[in-house]
Amino acid sequence: MKLLDIFGTLKKDMDAVEQQLYRSIDVDQELLKETSLHLLQAGGKRLRPVFVLLGGKFGNYNLDRLQHIAVPLELIHSASLVHDDVIDDAHTRRGKPTVKSKWDNKIAMYTGDYIYAKALSLVTKLGNPEIHRILSKALVQMSIGEMEQIRDFFNTSQSVRNYLLRIRRKTALLIAVSCQLGAIAADAPVEVSRMLYRYGYNVGMAFQIRDDLLDLKGTEKQLGKPPGSDMRQGNITLPVLFALQEERLREPLLREIADIHAGDGSADTSRAIQMILGSQGISRAELLADRYIEKALSSLQRLKDNKAKKHLQDIAYFVNRRAY
Amino acid sequence: MKLLDIFGTLKKDMDAVEQQLYRSIDVDQELLKETSLHLLQAGGKRLRPVFVLLGGKFGNYNLDRLQHIAVPLELIHSASLVHDDVIDDAHTRRGKPTVKSKWDNKIAMYTGDYIYAKALSLVTKLGNPEIHRILSKALVQMSIGEMEQIRDFFNTSQSVRNYLLRIRRKTALLIAVSCQLGAIAADAPVEVSRMLYRYGYNVGMAFQIRDDLLDLKGTEKQLGKPPGSDMRQGNITLPVLFALQEERLREPLLREIADIHAGDGSADTSRAIQMILGSQGISRAELLADRYIEKALSSLQRLKDNKAKKHLQDIAYFVNRRAY
Repeated sequence: MKLLDIFGTLKKDMDAVEQQLYRSIDVDQELLKETSLHLLQAGGKRLRPVFVLLGGKFGNYNLDRLQHIAVPLELIHSASLVHDDVIDDAHTRRGKPTVKSKWDNKIAMYTGDYIYAKALSLVTKLGNPEIHRILSKALVQMSIGEMEQIRDFFNTSQSVRNYLLRIRRKTALLIAVSCQLGAIAADAPVEVSRMLYRYGYNVGMAFQIRDDLLDLKGTEKQLGKPPGSDMRQGNITLPVLFALQEERLREPLLREIADIHAGDGSADTSRAIQMILGSQGISRAELLADRYIEKALSSLQRLKDNKAKKHLQDIAYFVNRRAY
Repeated sequence: MKLLDIFGTLKKDMDAVEQQLYRSIDVDQELLKETSLHLLQAGGKRLRPVFVLLGGKFGNYNLDRLQHIAVPLELIHSASLVHDDVIDDAHTRRGKPTVKSKWDNKIAMYTGDYIYAKALSLVTKLGNPEIHRILSKALVQMSIGEMEQIRDFFNTSQSVRNYLLRIRRKTALLIAVSCQLGAIAADAPVEVSRMLYRYGYNVGMAFQIRDDLLDLKGTEKQLGKPPGSDMRQGNITLPVLFALQEERLREPLLREIADIHAGDGSADTSRAIQMILGSQGISRAELLADRYIEKALSSLQRLKDNKAKKHLQDIAYFVNRRAY
């Protein structure tokens, strides 16, 4: 089952958002147009726009207004990826060359800068200072999260709490804000936008945990990039932290990680991955993802029953068994 | 004469802005705190905050409100410099190591991202959508300008118009917007904020032309970095374009520039610089800077006579003979 099959009803509106997305990066500077287009064409699930539209269904749904949130949120997500790829030295994403690999790091940096600025400029069409405040605060937190990630590379003594704080900033916040701002732009009651924020936050946490699991369990075909990428770049994820808590595994796994760290970035991660797959790290991480999904679902309970609520529930279930 | 001597009257308020500037980057992430602090401590003339405050003097001057514009504008300027230094591969700025040189390019990138986000988040305190619209549009233009600069590196066949468009985006717009937003935040009449915009734009153009001249004429001590940096990194500035129009110089100068381009970034630029200093490129660029200053001064004519107007005139004169 594909994500979009879940909501045929949104298809027409999502097509309109997609068109606006492409229109938004149309710029009279050839290089920027090319790199931005490349970035958008690399695809993605457009999950954040979907959340914005679904959030809007709990108020006065108006696509003309909602797209001024949906498009910027996808742009911000894209800009963060292009800067991320610079840090991670990633050559492919979703099976396609990254901007930093097709052009270079500097061009990737300014492509991200442009798309961030464009996103913020589009949001001004709504003329709602609260939306600005929420969005720019999320951006601050995201950039702190990116720096934490750099600080934590190959830090095997970090706590689980540390990991959770990091993915909160890196992923969960922007998804939470997508749901929340959809509701706010549709003038939904404040309790509703708060419940949607909580839903998005918990789904986002599960989403990132699942993503990190997939990097260990998935195949290159599923991932669009070689598995073990996180480990190679020093991104110590939840299953690794759990595996390191097992006495029998701790020392040999630390040695493997130290070897990968000492390597040139193309180090063999297969032994480390086998150790983690053989540990309880996988199932413990899955359990925690389950718990976030439960919390996401319970955040929806007090919302009125409508199609959008059903879709949000479906997405939560879907996120939790993602293998794509 | 130093810039600050011009306006003793603003000193107290500028000290408050400086304090807020430092407070604004206080963050619970050690690395970001360190890099951001390093960036602010590297100094700078705080010209944009000065323009904001002076702009505010043409309306209901209120420092509490104005600082929510003044601080973000200095932050945006600083963030653009830290990203700029990545592109230019600059190791020193104002005589101090750059973030990219003291840490690395990736850390510089995220330091810039954080400071941009922080700036936008601070502006939301004013709750004025028009200010957001103007500021985010300026950011879009700035990022397009940065990309143009990359595209134009070592492009010796670019037109003067091309150069002017580039420095408009790179420098003049943010200064124009500083003057304008100061007036808007102080609820000055729209004609006033427009005249201040025009003043800022023209001063900004002259400022950048003078800066580019200084890179050819200045000493390492004056510049805080070796002279000829623009030429080394392929930034073809106005005096160079004018010199290339002189028949006697064109071919030998093109050869020198080609050699610098082929070099490893530490190429000797002294012969090229001598050629340009011996051309009419210098005086022609100075004449154009003079013309922008005249336009800046005439933009002020219809504003009421007050101390702030006198300061703006003084700054215009000052910019045009800058040697620091």
